[in-house]
Amino acid sequence: MPTVKSSSKALLQNLPRQRGFFVGHGGSDRMARLVMKFGGTSVADLERIHNVARHVKREHDAGHEVAVVVSAMAGKTNELVGWVNDMPRVAGANASFYDAREYDAIVASGEQVTSGLLAIALQSIGVDARSWQGWQIPVRTNLAHGAARIDDIDGSMIVERMGQGQVAVVAGFQGISPDNRIATLGRGGSDTSAVALAAGVRADRCDIYTDVDGVYTTDPRVAPAARRLDKITFEEMLELASLGAKVLQVRSVELAMVHNVRTFVRSSFDDPDSIDSSEGANPPGTLICSEDEIVEQQTVTGIAYAKDEAQISLRRVADKPGVAAAVFGPLAEAGVNVDMIVQNVSEDGSVTDMTFTVPDSDLQKALNTLETSRSEIGYEVAQSDPGMVKVSVVGIGMRSHAGVASTAFKALAGKGINIRAITTSEIKISILIDADYSELAVRTLHSVYGLDKG
Amino acid sequence: MPTVKSSSKALLQNLPRQRGFFVGHGGSDRMARLVMKFGGTSVADLERIHNVARHVKREHDAGHEVAVVVSAMAGKTNELVGWVNDMPRVAGANASFYDAREYDAIVASGEQVTSGLLAIALQSIGVDARSWQGWQIPVRTNLAHGAARIDDIDGSMIVERMGQGQVAVVAGFQGISPDNRIATLGRGGSDTSAVALAAGVRADRCDIYTDVDGVYTTDPRVAPAARRLDKITFEEMLELASLGAKVLQVRSVELAMVHNVRTFVRSSFDDPDSIDSSEGANPPGTLICSEDEIVEQQTVTGIAYAKDEAQISLRRVADKPGVAAAVFGPLAEAGVNVDMIVQNVSEDGSVTDMTFTVPDSDLQKALNTLETSRSEIGYEVAQSDPGMVKVSVVGIGMRSHAGVASTAFKALAGKGINIRAITTSEIKISILIDADYSELAVRTLHSVYGLDKG
Repeated sequence: MPTVKSSSKALLQNLPRQRGFFVGHGGSDRMARLVMKFGGTSVADLERIHNVARHVKREHDAGHEVAVVVSAMAGKTNELVGWVNDMPRVAGANASFYDAREYDAIVASGEQVTSGLLAIALQSIGVDARSWQGWQIPVRTNLAHGAARIDDIDGSMIVERMGQGQVAVVAGFQGISPDNRIATLGRGGSDTSAVALAAGVRADRCDIYTDVDGVYTTDPRVAPAARRLDKITFEEMLELASLGAKVLQVRSVELAMVHNVRTFVRSSFDDPDSIDSSEGANPPGTLICSEDEIVEQQTVTGIAYAKDEAQISLRRVADKPGVAAAVFGPLAEAGVNVDMIVQNVSEDGSVTDMTFTVPDSDLQKALNTLETSRSEIGYEVAQSDPGMVKVSVVGIGMRSHAGVASTAFKALAGKGINIRAITTSEIKISILIDADYSELAVRTLHSVYGLDKG
Repeated sequence: MPTVKSSSKALLQNLPRQRGFFVGHGGSDRMARLVMKFGGTSVADLERIHNVARHVKREHDAGHEVAVVVSAMAGKTNELVGWVNDMPRVAGANASFYDAREYDAIVASGEQVTSGLLAIALQSIGVDARSWQGWQIPVRTNLAHGAARIDDIDGSMIVERMGQGQVAVVAGFQGISPDNRIATLGRGGSDTSAVALAAGVRADRCDIYTDVDGVYTTDPRVAPAARRLDKITFEEMLELASLGAKVLQVRSVELAMVHNVRTFVRSSFDDPDSIDSSEGANPPGTLICSEDEIVEQQTVTGIAYAKDEAQISLRRVADKPGVAAAVFGPLAEAGVNVDMIVQNVSEDGSVTDMTFTVPDSDLQKALNTLETSRSEIGYEVAQSDPGMVKVSVVGIGMRSHAGVASTAFKALAGKGINIRAITTSEIKISILIDADYSELAVRTLHSVYGLDKG
């Protein structure tokens, strides 16, 4: 009985890889086991659900074992969430406080509908299929209703049915909690469902069908020279997703990394019949995989950017132990999401400047909180600038290559772009600049690291 | 652990009545256990769901233990059923054939949403509540997906929670089948859910809140002199429901009769706060109960009518054994719903006439079927008349009163109404007449049996 414990990182990670399939892995005579995931736009109406069924039939006809994870029809989740939010007010309550367990029962119905419709669509074109709700599999979660974590997936029944040629159509975004109630995984949770299911059934690959045909070196709307990546490591994708690339939910990438689930991002809008699903074929898309599957690693893989950041600088803060806690503790309590933090070492050890960023939408709340804590923190002036952009250079090759950061600084300086803050990690450099220069900065960095197609 | 086996008529019927409550039963000091059921119109939007919550709070505040059964929001089931019907065609299938198990998974989502919203609405006005899906209770059904029968309801968890003051909000219309899948009870199944739950938790009463304020002696739109009945027996209600009175599903009345569930039909549109729910109060509505709760039984309780019947007469049918089977066997196979059947004894024992009714909508199919079987049956002419109406006189007192039928015949003759066919049972007389006379016939019979309000 294959299971996945997302709380136990080692469990599935060390299982032997049973099969090789597709993109770079040597062929095996066995057919593959696939999890296919389709989001709300891909199942927005009956015609699109039929299109999804054709994608599934193609893989099924190629001899693969297939499980499909579906989201709610586009707009449906928003409608249900709207009702949940409005119900307390309509009932005369002052605030929109609601029971997260009821939220889950209501909102999970969207995926339930899609799973049944896709099963019917598949049956109508001659593919044996059945729908599975989270509680039927079961997908066991913790008790954090509304934002639950998957603890365990019992893939045994689905594996058995797949072995009989039946396609499993799984309602995404949901599981069953220890109190025997439906628990949802939080918005965008269907990506997470798909990756967890792929781990639970030990799939060879998890295909995420989406409205783009892969992961790009940067946003093609900003830099027309952007290229689609054939492969990217889990670590890089995690940074890109965290930095604003909206292809995949951050949690699903984490889960894929922990359980080594090879995740393939591809387009749901391609004609299903034009795609070759046989072994060794190379359909368009981006494979997110472990480092060892990528033979020649680029130094820099992509450029991400995140808009609507606000910079806050506290001037002449007392440079003493505990001051960071005095600043960021109250902000965390107020629910302000602090991102980049830069603190200069003071010249004389007495006062220093502290700079950090928050989302534009949190700026006023952050300033109010700081004002309340002013005497405790002991700063002189709080300056703020909304409308900043964070541009990030990501690449696993940075770990072994020096000078990546200085190349960025030099290139931006050459275009007269002022750098307001810098933070770095092992595989990324983030730079805060004025929003006016964001496109120029993205294009400049994309070019200087040799990412332009050509 | 109280259970209800609808397949075993004796199981609950012989349980001791634990409590007396309301309308005619002597008071007890204990509070009552109630099941309240609200249909789709009563939960059509958030405002109405709030109104339902106020009805529930009133009973809860009066000290009663309360479980609520809800339908899907009005229109929702039709939308979901429409998708199920359309999906095969959109997928290119020739016919709208679909898997009833998937139908169930899809359509049951409507009640799931309402149950969660009502739980939130109750919590918002200070009433502890939680939603229950069929699989959580569980409500166990047979395998007849799409039109399942309830085999067993485990009321233990709900009884425990009700005892703690928590209102159970139960998604109607659904249970879980032996294959661990959602099973729905067929359209209108929420009435059945409510009555079955009332049996399962041994409720003192099952309140069906609907868009009318009770069961009337006849349709008030046809006979303005119609009166609301305070009480009616299960048997009479069963006849009325079967004969076209749309207040309750036939199945739910059968179930109420078998398990002796006192069922109270009342309006969901009354102001919740204007109703007295204390013991001994007598709110407007009709109690459906066993004969022994009705002290003075009327001879005739009500007049029902069913429109859009078609009469078929086979002339000069060979009067020999097996001819009825030769006529009605093929019709049953063709799915034609035959209702009244009248066969005269032939004068000379050789040929006879046979008359029966079918729904207008089945008439052409019936005639085609009869034409195909013509040589086998051996009739001379098949005559048909669409647009008939069946008027029925119902009353449990008929069992002990002679002359009820002749009163009807005399009254109709006095108005010049021609009787085309007659069938009778122990407690009803059904008369087929031309549709033109239906209102006149209903009013005449209503008056002649002393049912007019006065």
